[in-house]
Amino acid sequence: METEKSTKNIDPAGPSILVVGTGAIGSFYGGKLAQAGARVSVVCRSDYETIKAHGIRVASPLGDFHFQPEKILHEASEYGAVPDYILVGMKVLPEVNTAEIIRGAVGPETAIVLIQNGVEIEEPVALAFPHNEIVSGLAYIAVSRTAPGEILHQQYGRLTLGLYPSGDSAKVQRLACLLPASGIPCEVTSEVVSARWQKLVWNAPFNPISVLGGAVDTRVILSSEESVDLVRKVMEEVCLAAKAAGHELPPSVVQQNIDGTKAMKPYKPSMLLDYEGKRPMEVEAILGNAVRAARRLSVPVPHLETLYALLQLVDEGNRSRVSEAPCHHPD
Amino acid sequence: METEKSTKNIDPAGPSILVVGTGAIGSFYGGKLAQAGARVSVVCRSDYETIKAHGIRVASPLGDFHFQPEKILHEASEYGAVPDYILVGMKVLPEVNTAEIIRGAVGPETAIVLIQNGVEIEEPVALAFPHNEIVSGLAYIAVSRTAPGEILHQQYGRLTLGLYPSGDSAKVQRLACLLPASGIPCEVTSEVVSARWQKLVWNAPFNPISVLGGAVDTRVILSSEESVDLVRKVMEEVCLAAKAAGHELPPSVVQQNIDGTKAMKPYKPSMLLDYEGKRPMEVEAILGNAVRAARRLSVPVPHLETLYALLQLVDEGNRSRVSEAPCHHPD
Repeated sequence: METEKSTKNIDPAGPSILVVGTGAIGSFYGGKLAQAGARVSVVCRSDYETIKAHGIRVASPLGDFHFQPEKILHEASEYGAVPDYILVGMKVLPEVNTAEIIRGAVGPETAIVLIQNGVEIEEPVALAFPHNEIVSGLAYIAVSRTAPGEILHQQYGRLTLGLYPSGDSAKVQRLACLLPASGIPCEVTSEVVSARWQKLVWNAPFNPISVLGGAVDTRVILSSEESVDLVRKVMEEVCLAAKAAGHELPPSVVQQNIDGTKAMKPYKPSMLLDYEGKRPMEVEAILGNAVRAARRLSVPVPHLETLYALLQLVDEGNRSRVSEAPCHHPD
Repeated sequence: METEKSTKNIDPAGPSILVVGTGAIGSFYGGKLAQAGARVSVVCRSDYETIKAHGIRVASPLGDFHFQPEKILHEASEYGAVPDYILVGMKVLPEVNTAEIIRGAVGPETAIVLIQNGVEIEEPVALAFPHNEIVSGLAYIAVSRTAPGEILHQQYGRLTLGLYPSGDSAKVQRLACLLPASGIPCEVTSEVVSARWQKLVWNAPFNPISVLGGAVDTRVILSSEESVDLVRKVMEEVCLAAKAAGHELPPSVVQQNIDGTKAMKPYKPSMLLDYEGKRPMEVEAILGNAVRAARRLSVPVPHLETLYALLQLVDEGNRSRVSEAPCHHPD
């Protein structure tokens, strides 16, 4: 396409990145990293034939672009080299064993980058690869996969990256320095687990309530006194659990999240999009892990656990309906 | 119909009863009282023409029957006499002003019988008619209105009656003695408000969870550990609120309700039937009044209030869809 930027001119000195999963997050950030000069390959399953033939098309307010991965693979083990980074953008679901999916390409120097929602999602990967750097990432973006190889970026895009469980590293810095060249703000934090809990302050109420309240957007949720009160109480419970886990958040975070959401355009959280698309929801990553952490730390989270129990029931029913290939719309 | 029992042979000495609303509860118990010898008239709105032409047909495992009301009226004020009883079986909804609907037929000696779900539902009527006997009633029955003038009784039928707020009266006894003649067990309690709270122990978890969990029956609700735990916690909160309101329930009531429901056939609670029929749900009578009572009495009910906030959202969305004439399926 003459009107689109392309990712064909790859910097041979750029880092090698293997993106696992060609959902919205993997495709978008993989494409942006390629634009910024990285050598980016992808592992894909159901989208393989389409991407092999046409690459990945990203429609974005920052400029549409075409992402032509260096290699397009069925399995990580086919990569045939040791990548500097493996980037995982898949949804966090109990049936997805990330460690097994990436194992075939993990070398001693490979940093594993998890750009995913939820809390306490790094541990299984960290345990499987105890000698590798784990980079934890949070994407603040509205993006969806509309068809195989077709990505729609709607707005936002900021990425927060940090070494897991805390600290900093040269690999984190190198990755974070690449993205701004493609127009994506990226910040590094030495306390990425705190950042995960802080993101959960928004996700824990709005994601489940949007589904459980009958497929409602943020405007509807914030239009009723009882449900604003529920949002606030869930946020406060997340703050208490975070504090008990050693990640005290500023007390202003609750009101800021409510006011900020009121100021936003009406927004459908990712769980609602997954629910409406009859795809599995990230019930365990977003709610189950938080409830389990709270119970482990003896923090009562009665509002949160009510949402969790209900959402398990809804997810089970939803999964028994016809489902498509997984898409990814993290909040 | 030759094969059906009819209600034509009315005992001139039987009490006069005006049934307000020809939903499932009013039609079924009105018909049974007529079978037992009472002179029963009905006030109906959308069903008027059908019932005027054909009366009310009740299909029931106890025997199908035809209920021919003595008078069929548009408004209570058309009754033209003072009934011994006014029987109200309508759903309890904020937009239904029971006192105004019945006012035209309430005489000094009229007992007002409320066979309805929820807690603290008697007060508005008691305040409007401070000199009348209020009889509070709880129906343990699966019955629905399938069309105007058509009632399907599926199972159960037991009625609990009591003078509100407590005690006993000749009118309560007279009503309670009538029903067994028609095959309906009826027990009198001197503590009917306690009986309401006790019924709420079942209704408060199963009704909302059946809707919020994605249109699931009792079997699905009881098949997941998290949701059984939620059921139990909601039941415990109802017991705490009841106790604070002066109605201590036996501690065994929680486990008995769970075990009893496990032993039942899978069952769709009334709220789920209303939700699926796109009819208003009794959110305020069943949940809102309980939450408000708990807050007034400083009893924390976090699980219950989460269900309440979510169900308000769902009910609002449900009401904005196409709706039919109200039907009644109390649990």
